[in-house]
Amino acid sequence: MRTIIIGGVAAGMSAATRLRRLDETREITVFERGVHVSFANCGLPYHVGGVIADRSSLLLQTPESLAARFALDVRVGHEVTAIDTAARTVTVRDVAAGTESVEAYDDLVIATGAAAAPGPSAGGVPTHTLRSVQDVDRVVDVLEGAGPAPRVVVAGAGFIGLEAVENLVARGAHVTLVSRGRQVLSPLDPEMAAPLLAVLREAGVDVRLGATIVGAEAGTVRLDDGSTLEAVLVVEASGVRPDRGLAALAGIEVGPSGGISVDGRQRTSAPHVWAAGDGVEKRDHLDGEPTLVTMAGLANRHGRAIADDIVGLDPSEARPALGTAVLGLFGTTVAFVGSSERRLRAEGRAHRVIHTHPASHATYYPGAQTMAMKLLVDPASDRILGAQIVGGDGVDKRIDVIAVAMAAGLTASALSQLELAYAPQYGSAKDPVNMIGYVAQNFAEGTTGAVQWHELPAALADGATLIDVRTAAEHAAGAIPGAVNLPLDELRARHDEIPDGPVIVHCQVGQRGHTAARLLTQLGHDVRNLDGGYRTWLAGREATAPTPDRGETHE
Amino acid sequence: MRTIIIGGVAAGMSAATRLRRLDETREITVFERGVHVSFANCGLPYHVGGVIADRSSLLLQTPESLAARFALDVRVGHEVTAIDTAARTVTVRDVAAGTESVEAYDDLVIATGAAAAPGPSAGGVPTHTLRSVQDVDRVVDVLEGAGPAPRVVVAGAGFIGLEAVENLVARGAHVTLVSRGRQVLSPLDPEMAAPLLAVLREAGVDVRLGATIVGAEAGTVRLDDGSTLEAVLVVEASGVRPDRGLAALAGIEVGPSGGISVDGRQRTSAPHVWAAGDGVEKRDHLDGEPTLVTMAGLANRHGRAIADDIVGLDPSEARPALGTAVLGLFGTTVAFVGSSERRLRAEGRAHRVIHTHPASHATYYPGAQTMAMKLLVDPASDRILGAQIVGGDGVDKRIDVIAVAMAAGLTASALSQLELAYAPQYGSAKDPVNMIGYVAQNFAEGTTGAVQWHELPAALADGATLIDVRTAAEHAAGAIPGAVNLPLDELRARHDEIPDGPVIVHCQVGQRGHTAARLLTQLGHDVRNLDGGYRTWLAGREATAPTPDRGETHE
Repeated sequence: MRTIIIGGVAAGMSAATRLRRLDETREITVFERGVHVSFANCGLPYHVGGVIADRSSLLLQTPESLAARFALDVRVGHEVTAIDTAARTVTVRDVAAGTESVEAYDDLVIATGAAAAPGPSAGGVPTHTLRSVQDVDRVVDVLEGAGPAPRVVVAGAGFIGLEAVENLVARGAHVTLVSRGRQVLSPLDPEMAAPLLAVLREAGVDVRLGATIVGAEAGTVRLDDGSTLEAVLVVEASGVRPDRGLAALAGIEVGPSGGISVDGRQRTSAPHVWAAGDGVEKRDHLDGEPTLVTMAGLANRHGRAIADDIVGLDPSEARPALGTAVLGLFGTTVAFVGSSERRLRAEGRAHRVIHTHPASHATYYPGAQTMAMKLLVDPASDRILGAQIVGGDGVDKRIDVIAVAMAAGLTASALSQLELAYAPQYGSAKDPVNMIGYVAQNFAEGTTGAVQWHELPAALADGATLIDVRTAAEHAAGAIPGAVNLPLDELRARHDEIPDGPVIVHCQVGQRGHTAARLLTQLGHDVRNLDGGYRTWLAGREATAPTPDRGETHE
Repeated sequence: MRTIIIGGVAAGMSAATRLRRLDETREITVFERGVHVSFANCGLPYHVGGVIADRSSLLLQTPESLAARFALDVRVGHEVTAIDTAARTVTVRDVAAGTESVEAYDDLVIATGAAAAPGPSAGGVPTHTLRSVQDVDRVVDVLEGAGPAPRVVVAGAGFIGLEAVENLVARGAHVTLVSRGRQVLSPLDPEMAAPLLAVLREAGVDVRLGATIVGAEAGTVRLDDGSTLEAVLVVEASGVRPDRGLAALAGIEVGPSGGISVDGRQRTSAPHVWAAGDGVEKRDHLDGEPTLVTMAGLANRHGRAIADDIVGLDPSEARPALGTAVLGLFGTTVAFVGSSERRLRAEGRAHRVIHTHPASHATYYPGAQTMAMKLLVDPASDRILGAQIVGGDGVDKRIDVIAVAMAAGLTASALSQLELAYAPQYGSAKDPVNMIGYVAQNFAEGTTGAVQWHELPAALADGATLIDVRTAAEHAAGAIPGAVNLPLDELRARHDEIPDGPVIVHCQVGQRGHTAARLLTQLGHDVRNLDGGYRTWLAGREATAPTPDRGETHE
C-alpha cells in the first residue's frame, strides 16, 4: 500500500506522521515543490525582524529527520503537475533536473495550501511575499543591501501584513502600509480596529487606507490616488487564495468559496483522494456553508484526521470552523472568534452587541491593563455568534475561553457562570468573561436596554436626552457633544432635573451607565445605556473619521 | 420591604448591590462586624510584601460610597449575635458601644464567610492570620518593629500560606514554612507539587513538612518533633472553616461538610433566609454531594443569584463547583480544577491519568516556558475529571480552557478539536490543550497503553524491559535506573535487540515514547509508554523521597 501526499507543511506532514504511527508497513511518499518541508510558516515575519534570530529554528524537520524517525520518503523540489484519479497516479516533475515521472498511489492526500493572491504590479521595486523561508531570505537580502533606515512598502493590512510591518520597524525600516480596505484587519469591526490604527501611527508607520499600488518605477511605488512612495522593497501581503489548480485540473470538485470541496472526513469528490489545509473549504460556524478559513491549527487537525480515515480508524468529523485568531502588534494583542457585526448586518441576521472594557486582572494589583471586548449574541437563542478583544495581557486567554464556550454551545449568559481561575495577578473574582456574560444575561432578562455607538446620532436627533453619569472631572476631560453631566452618585437626588422623554445614559465603559439605567428606569424614566460607554463611542468616532488626505505625508 | 445582609464582603456585597439595581424601593441594611466592607481579601498577602504598596487600594468601597451609589445602609462594627427566623428579626451588637438592638427583616442573607481554623498555641510569639486588613496591619507592625531579616514562621502550605511566604521573603524575612501535610498545596497530586518544593527551597525558604507547631516561648516556636525555630512572628494559615455558628444557633440546617446547607437558589432551611459564600456548602462537581469550596468567584456569583431570587427574577441555579484555582509562587504558576488523582483513588473511582510537558508557545519563537500538565479522565465516558498545571507563562490560560470544557461537558478527546488562538508568541498550532486531548483520544481509541510513574517499580519487578528512547546525550545526563538506551531514530533498525516479554518505553516528556510505542507495537512487541516520560518520573521520585531529617537546618 502506498500513500502519496502532495505538500509537506502543516496538513501534509500531520497526515504523514500520524499515518506512520498508525501503520508501520505502508509506503508514504511526500512530494513538496519547495525546498523545505515542515517549516514554521507563522514564524516567518519574526525572522525578518530578528526576533527569531536563528534561521535554522524555522526549519522544524528535514527529509532526513523524517526518514529516520518516521520512515517517510520526502522529496523536496518535486512538483506534482497532474493527478489521474482513474489510474490512481500522479505526474511528478523534479524541479531541478527538469525530469518527469509517473507515480502510483493507493491513497492520495492533497495539501497544496494557499498561494499569495496576485499582487500589484510593482516592477520597478523588488516585491516579495512572506510565504516560505526563501521569501524571507529574499526580503532579508534586500534589506541588508539597502542603506540604514530603508523605505519599505507593505501591501495588505491582514495578519501577515501587520506582522511584517512590526518586524520591518523592528529592523529599522521606514514603513508605509498600503491597504485597499477602510480599516486594518478586516475581520474586526471598525470600532475594534480603530485602536490598531493608533498603535501603528504611534510606531511611526505611515498608514494609507483605501489605497492600492498601481505600479512602480525604479525605487518608487505609485498608488491609485496618484501619490508616490519611495521604496527599496514591497512586501506583498494582500491575501491568499486556495492553490486548487492541480485538483481542479484533475476534475476534483472545487466549491463555491474557491477551495477544494471535502466532506466531514476530508474526502474529496474523487475516490481515494483526501484534502486538507489552506487549499480546502471549511464549514462555516454560523450557517454550515462552505467557507475559507486559513489557520494552521485546522490544517494540522484535518491532516491528522485524514490519516485516521485512511487506516479505517473512525476520525473526528471536522467541526464547523470558528476561525479563532490572535495577533501581536507593537505590544498590543488583538484576537477574535466567529462572526463580526459587519457580517451579521450584511447577512441581515438578528444580533445583539455588547462592548465592555475590563481590566486584565484585579485593579488593586499593579500592572492591570484595560482591554476592549465585544460580544455578538443571537437575541432569540442567546447563542454566542462572535467575539473580538483588543488590549494587552490576557487577551489571548479570554478569546480562548469564549472560543471553547462557542464550540461547546454555551449561551452568552452562561459565560457568567464559568469558574475561571482567580488570583489578583491573573484575573478578577468576576473575570472579564464572567462580566460580559452578566451583561448578556441582563439583556436576555430585559433588565437593561442599550444604544450602540453608531445608533447614537439618530437617537439624539429623535430628541433623546444624553446624560453623562461620570464625575465632573471625567466629563471635563472629554465628553460626547450634547451630553449633560449628572454624576451617578448624585443621580438619585437630582433625577428630577432630567427632562421628560427618552433618556440615554453613558459612563466611561458602560458599567456605571448600567447602574444609572437601572436606577432611572425604576424612577419612571424611559432610559437606555450607551453600550461600551465613552470609550466605545470614541473608538467608533475614530473609525468613522474621514480618511486623511492620502497625499498627506506623515513625517 | 427590608432585606438584612449579614457580612459585607464578597457574597454579601454582591447580593446588596445587585438587589439595589433590581429594586430601588427596598430598604437594604448590611451588618459587618469588622471595620471594613468590600475589601480585597485576595490581595492581603501582597500588601505584606509591598507589591500592593498603597494600603487604601485594598479598600474597594466604604459605607459612604455604598450609600451614595446604591443607597445601602452599611453598618460596620455591628455583629449579628442571633437570628429569630420565626419572628424574622436579628439581634445586633454595636461592637464599639456595646449596645444591642433587634432589627426586623423581610428577607435575610447570611454571608458570614469562613474563619481561620483554630491555630497552634504559640503564646510566646505574636501570631496573626491574614483574613482582614487589620490582620495585615498587625503583621506589618510586627515586621516593622523587628530588625532587618526577621525570622518568621508560616503555618500552613495552602494558598494563603504560600502567598504569605512569597511576600514575607519579598520583604526580606527568613521564612520557615511548617505544614502538617507531606507536600505543599494539598489539592495537587504529589508529583505535581514536587516542583513547588524546589521553587520554595530555591527562594531560601526552610520547608518543614509533616510538622506542626506545638507551642512557643518568648521568641521561639516549638515543633512536634522537638525542634525549635526562632521567630518574631507566626503567620497562621492552616486553613479555614465555615463561620456557621450564628446560623446553627438559629436552627438553620448545617450540612455534613460543616457549611450552611443551601439549595440551588441559595435558600437555607429557614424561610426567607438565603446564604452564600465561604460559609456555605457547594455542590461537588463529581458526585453532586455537598462540599466546601472557598472561592471568591463562587461567593460573588451566588450572592448575585440571591438578589435575583429575592425579587422573583429566575436566578441561575448554582452549578456544581469545579474549584478552579491559580497561585503564583516566585514566578511559577500553579493551577488546578476538579478532582485530584488522590481523591479519585481514595474513592475508588476508575480514572485515567495523562501527563504532558508542553511549551507555553511555539518553541521556535523565543521565551517559551515548559509546563507540566496532568489530566484525569473517566475511562468509561471520556469525561474530564480534573486537571493540574505547573509552569510559567500560559498556565492560567490552559486551566481556564479546561475548566470551560469541563463545565460544558466536553470529553477529554474533544479537547483536541478546540480552535484556540495561535500566533507563535501566544501558543502553538497544536496548543497544549489540543495535545493532551490527542493523547486522551489515543487512550480512548486504544492506540496506546501507558504506565504511570508510581506503577513503574512493580512493572520492572515483574520483568518488563525499560527502554529509554531519548538520545545518548540525554540518557547520559540522567536516566532511570535499569533503563537501556535505544534512541527512537534507531529503533526501527535495532528493535530485534529488545528481549521478548513486556516492554516499557520512555522519553523525556512522553511524546517520542508514544511514537516508539506505536512502532514497537506494530513490530509485535508488548509495549507501554511511561506516561509523562523522564520528567514526570523524576517529579514522582522527588515527591516520594523520604522527608529530610526535620532537625536539619537548611541554612
